[in-house]
Amino acid sequence: MTFVRNRWYVAAWDGEIGAGAFSRTICGEPIVMYRKLAGDVVAMRDACPHRLLPLSMGIREGDNLRCRYHGLLVGPDGKPRQMPIVHERVNEKICTPTYAVVERHRFVWVWIGDQAKANPDLVPDFWPCSREGWVFDGGYMHVKCDYRLFIDNLMDLTHETYVHMGSIGQQELMEAPLETRTDGDRVVLSRWMPDIDAPPFWRQALKKEGKVDRWQICHFVEPCSVLIDVGVSPVEAGDTLASHDSGVRGFVIDSMTPETETSSHYFWGMARNFDILDAGVTARLKAGQSRIFAEDIEILERQQVSIAVNPDMALRVLSIDSGGAHSRRVIERLMKQDA
Amino acid sequence: MTFVRNRWYVAAWDGEIGAGAFSRTICGEPIVMYRKLAGDVVAMRDACPHRLLPLSMGIREGDNLRCRYHGLLVGPDGKPRQMPIVHERVNEKICTPTYAVVERHRFVWVWIGDQAKANPDLVPDFWPCSREGWVFDGGYMHVKCDYRLFIDNLMDLTHETYVHMGSIGQQELMEAPLETRTDGDRVVLSRWMPDIDAPPFWRQALKKEGKVDRWQICHFVEPCSVLIDVGVSPVEAGDTLASHDSGVRGFVIDSMTPETETSSHYFWGMARNFDILDAGVTARLKAGQSRIFAEDIEILERQQVSIAVNPDMALRVLSIDSGGAHSRRVIERLMKQDA
Amino acid sequence: MTFVRNRWYVAAWDGEIGAGAFSRTICGEPIVMYRKLAGDVVAMRDACPHRLLPLSMGIREGDNLRCRYHGLLVGPDGKPRQMPIVHERVNEKICTPTYAVVERHRFVWVWIGDQAKANPDLVPDFWPCSREGWVFDGGYMHVKCDYRLFIDNLMDLTHETYVHMGSIGQQELMEAPLETRTDGDRVVLSRWMPDIDAPPFWRQALKKEGKVDRWQICHFVEPCSVLIDVGVSPVEAGDTLASHDSGVRGFVIDSMTPETETSSHYFWGMARNFDILDAGVTARLKAGQSRIFAEDIEILERQQVSIAVNPDMALRVLSIDSGGAHSRRVIERLMKQDA
Repeated sequence: MTFVRNRWYVAAWDGEIGAGAFSRTICGEPIVMYRKLAGDVVAMRDACPHRLLPLSMGIREGDNLRCRYHGLLVGPDGKPRQMPIVHERVNEKICTPTYAVVERHRFVWVWIGDQAKANPDLVPDFWPCSREGWVFDGGYMHVKCDYRLFIDNLMDLTHETYVHMGSIGQQELMEAPLETRTDGDRVVLSRWMPDIDAPPFWRQALKKEGKVDRWQICHFVEPCSVLIDVGVSPVEAGDTLASHDSGVRGFVIDSMTPETETSSHYFWGMARNFDILDAGVTARLKAGQSRIFAEDIEILERQQVSIAVNPDMALRVLSIDSGGAHSRRVIERLMKQDA
Repeated sequence: MTFVRNRWYVAAWDGEIGAGAFSRTICGEPIVMYRKLAGDVVAMRDACPHRLLPLSMGIREGDNLRCRYHGLLVGPDGKPRQMPIVHERVNEKICTPTYAVVERHRFVWVWIGDQAKANPDLVPDFWPCSREGWVFDGGYMHVKCDYRLFIDNLMDLTHETYVHMGSIGQQELMEAPLETRTDGDRVVLSRWMPDIDAPPFWRQALKKEGKVDRWQICHFVEPCSVLIDVGVSPVEAGDTLASHDSGVRGFVIDSMTPETETSSHYFWGMARNFDILDAGVTARLKAGQSRIFAEDIEILERQQVSIAVNPDMALRVLSIDSGGAHSRRVIERLMKQDA
Repeated sequence: MTFVRNRWYVAAWDGEIGAGAFSRTICGEPIVMYRKLAGDVVAMRDACPHRLLPLSMGIREGDNLRCRYHGLLVGPDGKPRQMPIVHERVNEKICTPTYAVVERHRFVWVWIGDQAKANPDLVPDFWPCSREGWVFDGGYMHVKCDYRLFIDNLMDLTHETYVHMGSIGQQELMEAPLETRTDGDRVVLSRWMPDIDAPPFWRQALKKEGKVDRWQICHFVEPCSVLIDVGVSPVEAGDTLASHDSGVRGFVIDSMTPETETSSHYFWGMARNFDILDAGVTARLKAGQSRIFAEDIEILERQQVSIAVNPDMALRVLSIDSGGAHSRRVIERLMKQDA
């Protein structure tokens, strides 16, 4: 096992789940999801408790799914509502596992592990995705790599130079000092660039001339997310690493839910507090991220294969990897606690 | 091992085997088959005893196959007739395993297991496929599932409602009482519907108005076949479950020969004792079965995958599964005897 | 392990390796190769020592490769020249394994095993590929079989009759006596045909009428090559098996480098000492070999699969297999010495 149990995982975008049955494997468990008539999301093991045909092949009846094989009618609690022989007594011991679900910050989260421990208060705080005055959108990609390779990638800002040579890579970024610190289970990698000229994208967002302070702050949020706080504010505002809301600000949102030990679901997007009604900005940011993340995925999938075919070689940790290395240590510790 | 050894298995339809070498894997053993000049069928391991090239790639010479690699000439008894160096003494110790073959009831049967035990009297009695006054035809499908999932499917008549919603499914069938009994190694699941209106297909076959008795009787015939006795007879004839030849009668023939532990060869067809010279009826029955069985196969292949990805869940047995459950118990017992 | 370590293996044709990074797996080890500015060939493990991305995806800079992930600059000695943060001290302990390389006889050879033992004097002597007065050309094929099946194939001249029925197969060849002898680690299979009419190809090469002596001499050159000495000379020259340079002579060159335990790189060609400036002869020989070897590959790949699916059957050794059997014994002995 390479992932932490007893945690909330992003299973889908809110818009991916509708009335129809939707199947996705989370942490090795095939899960079927759909919205009840009242709108809340159901998640259960995607297998009829009778003969294991995927329930996602079934027929929706009210808030239930009827299995396409023998017609067992399964309720949103995983228990049968009607047996194949309709007049037979319902046997509730024949039921499929269900998953606690919370819909928050535009994502559908499911609890993987002991369902008795599911506590909605433990859903990671992706506040920029749902706060008043902010706007958030993004996309989904399936990636054939261990989710931890993705965390390594996102907790390091230097790879932009080569992976994203044709897009956002800038040699200048390599020169700014980075600071990594661990705060309990959170790892923070930060870069503060005081008193500089704003790059074109940010100048346009700020709508103001003059020198700015600029920041890039990567937060590893266990078990498998990275939120990157980015933005600029006018020098004269005196913003700091701890508090910087005087200018324009965004969050790159990345959650890499394990599918298997060597594949992941990548949920990504951008939240921002400027031009929030401008759908063109939203669309361009999404298109840009999509292009950039495709570049990362090419690298990560090749890296995954290379690790497998070079079993005698180990991943090495350089200074630039401290963000990823600290994050992996948190994951290791949480997996041990769970075991 | 999930199949019974020391048994006859259907390896092919009679029409599939001609003069040319035909290769099929039965119970994990690659077998090459062809007809001798006299017409009888040869079955041997599909590997040259010299360097193991498939003999099915070879060249037919008389009743022998010459290997396409070094030219070893192998006779229908698996022994060499000529060495690669033609004047060298034939070494009969270099031979390929052969299989006992019986051609009966339109099928080519091979004996899997200890060849010394092969007894033609033990070929399952598919009498409707070859009896005077009956006609029989059908087809072949390759299915990626354990043959036992197929037996579960065929020893249950209730799944028709959902799997075959668009074709033969009828809610009414679910209401008729079913009886399961085991008679030695045979399992019989029967449904007797007395004094009813004949459905259109059967009325047309019977060519007679009036109330009928109708039956559906599934026979599990070990190790891997199901014969389903179906038909109607006029009420006034007084037919019974034990004896019902006063009307029209058919047998759905199903033999699911294991290829591997997770794939099967499905030989299916319909034998009947009415309109036996009407090739149009034969063709329509075959086309109809082909459509219906394709619906089953979609379900069975998805079920096989789902079983693999939900290792923590077990197949559960409901009342409707008693036919399959009894059949599996017979298979378990026979596998133990064999071991 | 099915191959001998501490040996030189053909990794590529000279023409396959240029300035760009070229990746090929040799004996299970992914290797990146390229030519330095001075022209000599570099070979190292195809994995960045930092995070294992294939170096073959990298960017050439001078004689170095810069990894496309974080920009680690790796020199031809496998050691870093520059860290991702360019001003950081280079840590030479973070390095990728390198391979000794010799370019000889038109091939690029790499040493697999303990690099300290690499000795250029141990490169197999493919002298006809590089000697004055000879010309050599050929091609490459990827083959999904154990390299030893290929050696069996080449150390036997009788399979031509059936495998190459449509091309070079001749029943007459089967009749000539063969002699196998082992000379240390070399196995020699020879056929001397004295005082015969030259076949058309050789008569044209010899440019002379009259009876000839003809020879076919297969040399197994450990660990994985076969050189086949072929030709004719006028009877009156009195050539012998030991010395036969009075007529025209060629060498079929075959080197089967293991990729994995069940796949190989096949480097093949023809060296000759006649018509050496006639590019048309060279092209026709290459085209002819390409057709013939494709016939062998079809057989060998089917044989590999058949061996896997018939685990209860063993490869048997007939008189015609003595060349291959002796060669396999040499390989077995060398693997034991190495272990």
